[in-house]
Amino acid sequence: MAAKMGSLREKLLSMRGGSEINFDDIESLEDRINCRCSYRCLVDGIVSSWQQLQDMVTKAVEMGRSDHRKIIFSVKMGLALMLISFLIYLKESLKEFSRYSVWAIITVVVVFEFSIGATLSKGFNRAVGTLSAGGLGLGMAHLSQLAGEWEEAFIIISIFSTGFFVTYIKLYPTMKPYEYGFRVFLLTYVIVMVSGNRTREFIQTAITRFLFIALGASVGFGINLLIYPIWAGEDLHNLVVKNFMGVATSLEGCVNGYLNCIEYERIPSKILTYEAYDDPCYNGYRAAVQSTSQEDALLGFAIWEPPHGPYRGFGYPWKNYVKVSGSLRHCAFMVMALHGCILSEIQAPPERRQVFFNELRRVGIEGAKVLRELGGKVKRMEKLSPVDILCEVQEAAEDLQNKIDKKSFILVNSESWEIGNRATKVHRDGQLEDLIDFDYDEKRILEHKSRSEAVLDLRSLPSSGAWDSEKPSPTGAASPLQVEKQMFWSAGISALNGQIMESSKTYESASALSLATFVSLLIEFVARLQNLVDAFEELSIKANYKEPNIGQVEEQNGIFSRLHSKLTKQ
Amino acid sequence: MAAKMGSLREKLLSMRGGSEINFDDIESLEDRINCRCSYRCLVDGIVSSWQQLQDMVTKAVEMGRSDHRKIIFSVKMGLALMLISFLIYLKESLKEFSRYSVWAIITVVVVFEFSIGATLSKGFNRAVGTLSAGGLGLGMAHLSQLAGEWEEAFIIISIFSTGFFVTYIKLYPTMKPYEYGFRVFLLTYVIVMVSGNRTREFIQTAITRFLFIALGASVGFGINLLIYPIWAGEDLHNLVVKNFMGVATSLEGCVNGYLNCIEYERIPSKILTYEAYDDPCYNGYRAAVQSTSQEDALLGFAIWEPPHGPYRGFGYPWKNYVKVSGSLRHCAFMVMALHGCILSEIQAPPERRQVFFNELRRVGIEGAKVLRELGGKVKRMEKLSPVDILCEVQEAAEDLQNKIDKKSFILVNSESWEIGNRATKVHRDGQLEDLIDFDYDEKRILEHKSRSEAVLDLRSLPSSGAWDSEKPSPTGAASPLQVEKQMFWSAGISALNGQIMESSKTYESASALSLATFVSLLIEFVARLQNLVDAFEELSIKANYKEPNIGQVEEQNGIFSRLHSKLTKQ
Repeated sequence: MAAKMGSLREKLLSMRGGSEINFDDIESLEDRINCRCSYRCLVDGIVSSWQQLQDMVTKAVEMGRSDHRKIIFSVKMGLALMLISFLIYLKESLKEFSRYSVWAIITVVVVFEFSIGATLSKGFNRAVGTLSAGGLGLGMAHLSQLAGEWEEAFIIISIFSTGFFVTYIKLYPTMKPYEYGFRVFLLTYVIVMVSGNRTREFIQTAITRFLFIALGASVGFGINLLIYPIWAGEDLHNLVVKNFMGVATSLEGCVNGYLNCIEYERIPSKILTYEAYDDPCYNGYRAAVQSTSQEDALLGFAIWEPPHGPYRGFGYPWKNYVKVSGSLRHCAFMVMALHGCILSEIQAPPERRQVFFNELRRVGIEGAKVLRELGGKVKRMEKLSPVDILCEVQEAAEDLQNKIDKKSFILVNSESWEIGNRATKVHRDGQLEDLIDFDYDEKRILEHKSRSEAVLDLRSLPSSGAWDSEKPSPTGAASPLQVEKQMFWSAGISALNGQIMESSKTYESASALSLATFVSLLIEFVARLQNLVDAFEELSIKANYKEPNIGQVEEQNGIFSRLHSKLTKQ
Repeated sequence: MAAKMGSLREKLLSMRGGSEINFDDIESLEDRINCRCSYRCLVDGIVSSWQQLQDMVTKAVEMGRSDHRKIIFSVKMGLALMLISFLIYLKESLKEFSRYSVWAIITVVVVFEFSIGATLSKGFNRAVGTLSAGGLGLGMAHLSQLAGEWEEAFIIISIFSTGFFVTYIKLYPTMKPYEYGFRVFLLTYVIVMVSGNRTREFIQTAITRFLFIALGASVGFGINLLIYPIWAGEDLHNLVVKNFMGVATSLEGCVNGYLNCIEYERIPSKILTYEAYDDPCYNGYRAAVQSTSQEDALLGFAIWEPPHGPYRGFGYPWKNYVKVSGSLRHCAFMVMALHGCILSEIQAPPERRQVFFNELRRVGIEGAKVLRELGGKVKRMEKLSPVDILCEVQEAAEDLQNKIDKKSFILVNSESWEIGNRATKVHRDGQLEDLIDFDYDEKRILEHKSRSEAVLDLRSLPSSGAWDSEKPSPTGAASPLQVEKQMFWSAGISALNGQIMESSKTYESASALSLATFVSLLIEFVARLQNLVDAFEELSIKANYKEPNIGQVEEQNGIFSRLHSKLTKQ
């Protein structure tokens, strides 16, 4: 199955072209040149463009279906434009100002942004830019009249210096949110100076322009705010929730993938260059890591929005949403490193992974559960329940650590220890089985954790089809693919020592350490959850989240734990 | 020293406020309220705002000094505005079109972007939007005249439907680069329909508007292109080089920090929430990881730019720069995980780190060297030399792996092995020293790598002040800080078993595994370099980089290796 997936991926990759020169493209180009004037070609062209159009329409309809707000926004935009043209038409009294009516239209088109926050922020920028530039323009115009015959020179020099200073300030990093305001300032100033000077109607120019802008702005704001408002704050809220779910899915995917020894036959070049790629392990954490700029943009808009819906009170702590997401990202980096273990050229042998199967899986499940629960709490805007949310996952991590502690001989290659050799048998595969059996027997005697007892059942997995064809052979007799993957090691060592034996041994040892790394990263992930919970608690207090329905939670917990203990006891 | 740094950080943090409620702020607020009307307050206010102004001016001057292009761009903007106002003034023949002159000014202000690529892309959007909307508007206007008494209704409905469809298409994700074009389309269409209908001069409106836009665009383009052009491609090139250097610095910082046992007394909350923070280990990789959106934006502009300077040929492979940067990011994630080991609550004891001091340091140095060399090659636009750039670093990784192979007993806690106890003495600190001595003696006999012999000298480090006060005590008698850090572990275990002894042992074992993780991640980093080199090679071929000056390279190599061997032999 893994092999199939791999080859499928490869096919998909080669279909998409990748970085290599695509000979298919060249052929099709030649075809196109050859049949340039034939009738068939024309028909083909029409058919294919018709199909493309159909595709486009299908996609556009799908977009609307998946996010109704996009349709609603488009309707609102149409309505706003219709209304403003209607007003300009209707008002016969406005006819004499028709040359200014264009400003109302411009304002509507420019200010009408998707979210209310963006609309308000742009509107504010536009208003401040227009007003201040208008004021400055009027003042300078008066001054310019005093300059007498130097008037034109004065105006042109003032335009240059205003252009210079405003542009320079605009480039200052902290001024970025106000970039649009500076642009409008410049525009208004130059227009007032130039057109005002022509007609000697400075004040009229400025005031009429301002009135039309106000008209456009009120139409824009009115329609955007009153009809189905789309809030940036809500988007930010949903984005944070989505990130939680994505990281949880990634974590589960990575742990399960690792335990089932899923390997990439050829690592997709998109992952190697950190581009978007459709892989459940990769997608979730990448989206969470990549969302920083989106979050910053949404935060910048959300703070402009008035209290609405569940986001009551002025000064709503939107910043804390970004902080929670940042803490989540801090955890996601560990998931990323876990995925790195799957992507790695050096892989731990399946047999050794099986030893920690239950413990690893439990940490993965509990970790994902915590993330989902936190995400759900953010979604429902609910405080943490008095029960420690991290209790289970920390216990699971503790168990994993204890197991590692007792079985760390599996993680190392004692064959080459300088201080002598004792546990050589550990490293022959067949004998590892004995060890696991031994472990099992001893476990049964100790019986200190009922959950760990499923080791035996799961050990049968290696012979199942899931990764049978793909499992790396830890004795050094590598499969062709594996050989390619180990090239760095083999080449390095054979160049150094010329001994293939040593190469395979070193690989074996590195391979065992890789398991230690996975475990260690998973434990570090659990440790980082505390930071995330702290950030969430800060948010829940500042945003005044509601108290959880404790009865319900306890009941759920009861069901969960009963179900869980049943499942593990079976 | 580490302690000092830690407390300094904490002080800085508390000064900056962090997330806690800042009582200083509240006090100063009260002060402000109390002295509202006093004379002193007024003077203070003036003085402080004067100081703020001075600060701002200083910062602005610094910005100009660090990047001259910002001054030049501002001058260019001033010039363009001056020129366009001058043209509008001068041309007496244009007077009758004065109502359209505003379009020329708008075009200059809107199209004048920092880089040439952005200017061209915006100009293209504006041109296509204006032309197509003008064409459609004229057509619709003719049709509307046929509608007779329904003319107004027809126009208003056509405005609504155009507004709806254009906005909807604009929201389609792949249409994002053309967002501005759609906006201009909408604007032009509505203006042509509304103002054209008023004056019955559809064609004149459209053509005059187009001519003035062309005038503004040519002034904007002319000045922006001819006077000191600022290229987005160059920015992209420099950004990629900067990322290389940043990741190299981070790598060195992480490896050295780990070896010198630098610890964060309290991890800065900015790191925990992945915000920008001034830390040499953190800054470099964060910048590289965060630069995705900047790179995408620059790529979007760079592809618009004509061949210039060293970027010869149409279809210059800008995409490959982003790909190289993506591969670098793939390596940077490992550096991030290495930094995670420093941030981790569980730290390997300094004594054990010292065992691998030389090997780890060498991999760190060689890895950073490779990154710097690749970065330098991108900067100089030079192909790889025939000598394998990864040879040294892979050899270093190989040595590290061999050493780990021979000393993996240091990485585990054999005390609690279920299969019996043999190497108990390994875990008592005093006896570890003996082991290291033993190792050293044996090494001297084997003498298979001259560079590894500096172990003894460097072992004296633990007693030096650098991390003496901070080193975690692996026997479980933790320092107060350490206790806090281990809380998760202690709490978890004492709740489970009620045995403090076991807790400390588990911590000890986890702590030893942490070293294995660091080593493993470092080796994975080295493995990922191959992918980076491949991406660079693809770029160097596609972009037709020049051949390196081999003589010079060899000479440099000679000097380096001689210097290096001298230093290590000393």
